[in-house]
Amino acid sequence: MARMLNLHRLSAVVICLFTIRPAIADEGMWPFNQFPSATVEARYGVRIDDAWLDRVRTGTVRLSNCTASFVSAEGLILTNHHCVANCLAEHSTRESSLLELGFLARRRSDEIRCGTQIADVLMVMRDVTGTVLEAIAGLGEQAANEERKRQLTQLEQDCETAAQVAYPRELRKCEAVTLYDGGQYFMYEYRRYDDVRLVFAPEAAIAAFGGDPDNFQFPRWCLDMGVLRAYENGAPAVTPNHLTIDFTGPAEGEPVFVSGHPGSTDRLLTVAQLRTLRDVVLPPTLLRAAELRGRYIQFGKLGDQEARIASEPLFSLENGIKVRRKLLDALHNDALMAQKLEQEETLRRWVAANDALAKEIGDPWQRIAEAEETERALSLRHTLLEGGAGFNSDLFRYARTLVRAAAERPKLNTDRLPEFADAALPRIEQRLRAAVPVYRELEQLTLSFSLERMREWLGPDDALVRELLLDDSPDSLAEALIAGSTLSDPDVRMALWAGGQTAIDNSRDPMIALARRVDVSARAIRKRYEDEVEAPVDLAAEAIARARFAAFGTEAYPDATFTLRLNVGAVAGWIEDGVPVAPFTRLERLFERTTGRAPFALPAAWLERRDRLDLDTPFNLATTNDIVGGNSGSPLINAAGDVVGLIFDGNIHSISGAYWFDTQMNRSVAVHTAIIREALTKIYGADELMRELL
Amino acid sequence: MARMLNLHRLSAVVICLFTIRPAIADEGMWPFNQFPSATVEARYGVRIDDAWLDRVRTGTVRLSNCTASFVSAEGLILTNHHCVANCLAEHSTRESSLLELGFLARRRSDEIRCGTQIADVLMVMRDVTGTVLEAIAGLGEQAANEERKRQLTQLEQDCETAAQVAYPRELRKCEAVTLYDGGQYFMYEYRRYDDVRLVFAPEAAIAAFGGDPDNFQFPRWCLDMGVLRAYENGAPAVTPNHLTIDFTGPAEGEPVFVSGHPGSTDRLLTVAQLRTLRDVVLPPTLLRAAELRGRYIQFGKLGDQEARIASEPLFSLENGIKVRRKLLDALHNDALMAQKLEQEETLRRWVAANDALAKEIGDPWQRIAEAEETERALSLRHTLLEGGAGFNSDLFRYARTLVRAAAERPKLNTDRLPEFADAALPRIEQRLRAAVPVYRELEQLTLSFSLERMREWLGPDDALVRELLLDDSPDSLAEALIAGSTLSDPDVRMALWAGGQTAIDNSRDPMIALARRVDVSARAIRKRYEDEVEAPVDLAAEAIARARFAAFGTEAYPDATFTLRLNVGAVAGWIEDGVPVAPFTRLERLFERTTGRAPFALPAAWLERRDRLDLDTPFNLATTNDIVGGNSGSPLINAAGDVVGLIFDGNIHSISGAYWFDTQMNRSVAVHTAIIREALTKIYGADELMRELL
Repeated sequence: MARMLNLHRLSAVVICLFTIRPAIADEGMWPFNQFPSATVEARYGVRIDDAWLDRVRTGTVRLSNCTASFVSAEGLILTNHHCVANCLAEHSTRESSLLELGFLARRRSDEIRCGTQIADVLMVMRDVTGTVLEAIAGLGEQAANEERKRQLTQLEQDCETAAQVAYPRELRKCEAVTLYDGGQYFMYEYRRYDDVRLVFAPEAAIAAFGGDPDNFQFPRWCLDMGVLRAYENGAPAVTPNHLTIDFTGPAEGEPVFVSGHPGSTDRLLTVAQLRTLRDVVLPPTLLRAAELRGRYIQFGKLGDQEARIASEPLFSLENGIKVRRKLLDALHNDALMAQKLEQEETLRRWVAANDALAKEIGDPWQRIAEAEETERALSLRHTLLEGGAGFNSDLFRYARTLVRAAAERPKLNTDRLPEFADAALPRIEQRLRAAVPVYRELEQLTLSFSLERMREWLGPDDALVRELLLDDSPDSLAEALIAGSTLSDPDVRMALWAGGQTAIDNSRDPMIALARRVDVSARAIRKRYEDEVEAPVDLAAEAIARARFAAFGTEAYPDATFTLRLNVGAVAGWIEDGVPVAPFTRLERLFERTTGRAPFALPAAWLERRDRLDLDTPFNLATTNDIVGGNSGSPLINAAGDVVGLIFDGNIHSISGAYWFDTQMNRSVAVHTAIIREALTKIYGADELMRELL
Repeated sequence: MARMLNLHRLSAVVICLFTIRPAIADEGMWPFNQFPSATVEARYGVRIDDAWLDRVRTGTVRLSNCTASFVSAEGLILTNHHCVANCLAEHSTRESSLLELGFLARRRSDEIRCGTQIADVLMVMRDVTGTVLEAIAGLGEQAANEERKRQLTQLEQDCETAAQVAYPRELRKCEAVTLYDGGQYFMYEYRRYDDVRLVFAPEAAIAAFGGDPDNFQFPRWCLDMGVLRAYENGAPAVTPNHLTIDFTGPAEGEPVFVSGHPGSTDRLLTVAQLRTLRDVVLPPTLLRAAELRGRYIQFGKLGDQEARIASEPLFSLENGIKVRRKLLDALHNDALMAQKLEQEETLRRWVAANDALAKEIGDPWQRIAEAEETERALSLRHTLLEGGAGFNSDLFRYARTLVRAAAERPKLNTDRLPEFADAALPRIEQRLRAAVPVYRELEQLTLSFSLERMREWLGPDDALVRELLLDDSPDSLAEALIAGSTLSDPDVRMALWAGGQTAIDNSRDPMIALARRVDVSARAIRKRYEDEVEAPVDLAAEAIARARFAAFGTEAYPDATFTLRLNVGAVAGWIEDGVPVAPFTRLERLFERTTGRAPFALPAAWLERRDRLDLDTPFNLATTNDIVGGNSGSPLINAAGDVVGLIFDGNIHSISGAYWFDTQMNRSVAVHTAIIREALTKIYGADELMRELL
């Protein structure tokens, strides 16, 4: 509206604005209610109607860490191997690892439950922007910040307890969603399955062939797939809205869609915020991660058991290192920063020239820049104490959850820390109850490491550091804590969970004692961070969002928030250093590329059954879809709405997609459906499974 | 001159230029022939005459890695503990470490030779700028680059073989010195002592009390001292020009001088060069270092022996990490980059307005910016292959030296790679001959690590990586190389050194084979780097230096080059976050700060003899002198020319001194002479040594 009002007297500025509109090409992670069907039809000649959108939406699944899709009427879920790695690790021991060996349930009774997994399907999206903005209108920064959180918790509570629904209330999970950094608020209703079981996973050696060296690379040969099944009431879930797999896969140039949950992008951040990431967030995070990587690797050399228990955390850590390394590269790219600055200044000028809007929102960019100065000062301490980077230990994380839950649960739902609101409690309880292995030698490694780095970065004379290490070293303190704690036992955790504050107060578990001791400092820095960084930034970001809507309406898509999005692209390679990269890889080259040594060693089954295979089978493929982490496991869908691939990665250029979309270079990478069939039938003899997928 | 000619018509611009002159305060690492005595007299009321300068110059010693000073007439050399750490490690084993235990030679016959150490004293500085510039005049970039190196080698050769000298020719060591990035060339003549022996070192626990957490911090309590003795012809050297120690130390505010060899600063780099450091040099270097740190630490947990042999490389690595971390912070500091940009643009405008100069030098900043684009593309490969970061192993370094020496030594002196010129050979031979322990388990750690990172960063499909790891992993390749190599034996090395190309060709040592195999690729990337980066940058830097001389003459000091410099400062603390930091620490607080656990544990001797000590003794002190790495071990000298402290560190802000000097915050940190006497007499009972120092 403001945009229409001002167009006539701002035409020159508006023309400039066109240069900062989102690219029409394949950029864009669209909420399903905002999918630009007309643009897509014009560009690709494909008509995406509401029925298509509904079917794909209800066929798409959100896991706790990934995306997936229903691919049979009896609850079969297709996702990535790395999305079921947690479940594989839960069912592994020092002696025997499902990550290494893979898993196939030949009968339904062999399917094993993933203790910390869930599967959510998005049923309803309701715009609650008006309610939220009304509630915070006229409030100061800190009051607005607190009231906003209170409102969102209240709306979640209302949603979860509402009577009229299409499915049982106990299966409903409501989640408040903030889009456009506060430009829109939505209430998303999910249908939740909390009994999810493992059906199939190949060996890690083929799921992640090439390991860390090949991660984010293409050409690529990874069978990065895993199959789960949703259960309800102890029986396979009935999922008639499932998607169908097309095992022939797509052709080069064919339009393809990705439905999934991109985790997080920072495309709408201001330049001041990007600089904070570049200067004070990414470098220390990377340095800690790189050192921890070295510790894990060296630990893994002690023997097979050590290598086995370190492999899953190492894999995930190395993935994070590669991502952050390329994020830092992106922020060091002068062209990116120049584009961001230009876009920002163009919008600022447009606002300045628009009297009413300028009067309404002032200069939110400047307010953010000021808050960022504070963030620079608080960031490290916030990360170490509240973020927990100073206490890297599963036992400590249990302890903190229990200590905080005891303090928060007696409060009014809307007065709690948001992560302890009623809507969040079932998931917390699920995690506390799950019998997940805790390896004390790994706990010792990560906890002593993180205490040591906390001492380095905060300094030995910091009051908390000094209190903790008065006559201890990080090693000796970690040893005492881990030896003395019984929190690895789910029963102990559940007793503390049930026992509330009294149980916590009476606990003599040293990890509980540590969490109690740290909590005062951690809450203090969190409060400062919320009041002095989050509050002004959120309010200013809302103002910028209003400016952006005034200029563009919702032609622009919101930043990724691990909520359901749809995007369009095409099967295509790219040009790397002047050399074309073909969009498909084929099985034959896999066998040429093996060295016989991890991570380029093939599982025995592949070597033994090589002769049966059609070596011309397409293996992985590249597409122009706009995805990021969280899209892992997403179905790659053709115009007919069928699954033609399984997204598992992007190319190396895709990592900068956190900040901008480079149409020329950014590619997503998927497992081809043809290799899925080839492997399931000829390598794994998974005939039952194949029958259900056909 | 150009400056005088143009002053009248450029007064406005010249006024701007004043803002980019070097600060008069305490900034400046002055060559002795350029020391601004008049400015110092005006500021501090201290008259520094030629006799003072000569005495301090000839009392100052350059070690291979540090600075030191003669402090007795019989060759005693005072330097830092961390400067003699190499020597301590050479004489240590898995079972017993001199780093841990310390060392005191109670008789001269107990003094132990440092096999790879030297001590150089600067005798003559001769300006050869005219000769060099004449030789390269009119040549293209690559030809100029090669001819410049040839000339400098020739000048070194002429210097070393010249007849007329004040001391025997075989003791003379000549070194070409490039100042102002090519604005000046000098020939420095040193008097070399190649027999240097260890006299005293305290335990690492007190020399580096607080370890890595306290490194670059102040207040501080480190007895970071070591005492060596120069020998000639098997007897203590006669060193009448030694400095005298004043054991009372300096007062707060007192002017103090640091004579020493600052290793390297980048204050004159262009903005494009600084950006290369920020974007493509520092981050990957830091990431590799952080991971290696993690590997060393985890390795050290295997047991006492492992901890012992990892401690010296870990200490040095951690020091490098802290330095580079703060260097990256400095380059992320918008104020620093803005100042650099402003200075650069001011000088560029001044040149552009000066027709003759502009015509002569063109736009060297732009030429550097273009070369930097190439450096960005080549940097990683250059670092890994030619810099050796892909083959981090002492045995590989021996192998490369031997392989290259065999190829280079038969060539004309001026045609060789400069590091194999005649002037450099004695030092290479000394290092090859020295019986330095090689720990195979550490070799395995560093080599497999670096091969793994090379594969990650160059990619598994890089031709060289693929050739090396065709059917090997980094671990298995490293294992085979280290198990098969006999290069840890000095006799084997000397045989290969003496045997030349034939011996190398016939060698079946796998590490020699690897060095041969890598050398083609390494030399190729080096050549590209020299031709496409170094050549244009050096020529452009010379042009910028000419512009700077035209504007400022030699009022500005050259960047540090590990050559002798003198600077002035005062004993002073600073204000940290609004809180004053006092310039002196005292012994009492050391005992309060110990935790009983490394690195905050005190040696037994200190705990046992605590009662004898005067707890009010000053321990460390801070001064405003402008120093960087390489100044370690420098004497802190008062106006009388006596030693009142021993430089061993800077505060955390001093690290950004690589790029600029922050007068408010940058402080050097020294051991107070009073604690040296207190410790030598009351803790170590080093009476003989004290008598010689008095």
